[in-house]
Amino acid sequence: MPPSSETVPVAAPAVVELLGLHARVQLAAFTQLAGDAWHAPDLPGQVTLARMAAGELAPLDQLERHVRELDADLYAVMDGYTGLLGDLDVRTPPGDWSERLVRTYVVYGMLADLQRALTVGLGPTTAEVVAEVLADNGYADFVVAVLGPVVAQDPQLGARLGLWGRRVVGEALGIVQRVLADHPLLVTFLAESETGDDVDRLRNQLAGGHARRMERLALKS
Amino acid sequence: MPPSSETVPVAAPAVVELLGLHARVQLAAFTQLAGDAWHAPDLPGQVTLARMAAGELAPLDQLERHVRELDADLYAVMDGYTGLLGDLDVRTPPGDWSERLVRTYVVYGMLADLQRALTVGLGPTTAEVVAEVLADNGYADFVVAVLGPVVAQDPQLGARLGLWGRRVVGEALGIVQRVLADHPLLVTFLAESETGDDVDRLRNQLAGGHARRMERLALKS
Repeated sequence: MPPSSETVPVAAPAVVELLGLHARVQLAAFTQLAGDAWHAPDLPGQVTLARMAAGELAPLDQLERHVRELDADLYAVMDGYTGLLGDLDVRTPPGDWSERLVRTYVVYGMLADLQRALTVGLGPTTAEVVAEVLADNGYADFVVAVLGPVVAQDPQLGARLGLWGRRVVGEALGIVQRVLADHPLLVTFLAESETGDDVDRLRNQLAGGHARRMERLALKS
Repeated sequence: MPPSSETVPVAAPAVVELLGLHARVQLAAFTQLAGDAWHAPDLPGQVTLARMAAGELAPLDQLERHVRELDADLYAVMDGYTGLLGDLDVRTPPGDWSERLVRTYVVYGMLADLQRALTVGLGPTTAEVVAEVLADNGYADFVVAVLGPVVAQDPQLGARLGLWGRRVVGEALGIVQRVLADHPLLVTFLAESETGDDVDRLRNQLAGGHARRMERLALKS
């Protein structure tokens, strides 16, 4: 038996909250990658990052439409995520291009893992919209292709970037924690943990994702 | 009789030069609009400008492909336009949001007019690629919708923005002049003037375009 339509009104506010998060993260990623593109040391890097930035906005149309179907306004929901990144820029000013790449890699890698973790119990339409959001933008592969060989040749840089990654990941975890604390409805979409603490389980998941990302760059996490 | 294929090698370097200009202007417009999006005072403005920024990159794939067909490399040609905007940012720092909008409106309006003026004698494939570049991104309409009513209510702001527009257009004309001086092959694509000076004719055309843009905002040009 399909879920009765009476369940929709209960779930809708949480779904809207989730879609607002996705829209805000996509816009933030656009802004970050566009800024990174501007800083890129060569033209191919500039163009590649600019294109990735543009790609982050592709799901916005569908997000906007689906939020409207749920009788809400995307901009109003997005407004609830103002200050999503807090003072990340102020607290972690990158000292050079490689630190900038690693910062975006760590923070947006973790935000993407958060987005991927919030997929339990979605209806088919929402699931379809979210699938577009979750499509890989290729950024991680780009960073690994650009930085991997450099780090492999320069253990001192590797040590510095490892340290930097550990500093940045603290900020990233703080962002996720704040998002969940300010938007408790989001927890609805987390897989249930056997021990009962879904957020704890998520934290472990995100830590694992971060460790794998650092490993891809041969950096100590 | 179709033009003989022997004319192709002569024209190709000029075509490549033109496509490089288009690619560089599109990338510059992306950077500008993405930066403007970041400065936008409200979320709908942020999203609208971010989307317009993304749209500027849409023709890059086709530009890249067509340049490759002409045995050249898009990045190498784009490199020839490094410093396209000169020190525009340093010389015309906008004092507020309305000055930022007007600056982009004036400079990129004129660059778009330049792009539109360079369309004489294109082969069919090039013409098709260029048509995508020349598609209106809606930015002028956006600025008129946002600023028009404000200017109409506030003559003092109108006077200030008029003055600002006259300062910015000087820079924009300087950019165009430098582009043509540094890339003389581009003149190939200008309509021939009866008096023989195609560049003079272009200058009049660009001045006319600027005057019309100012008029749409009820600003003195």
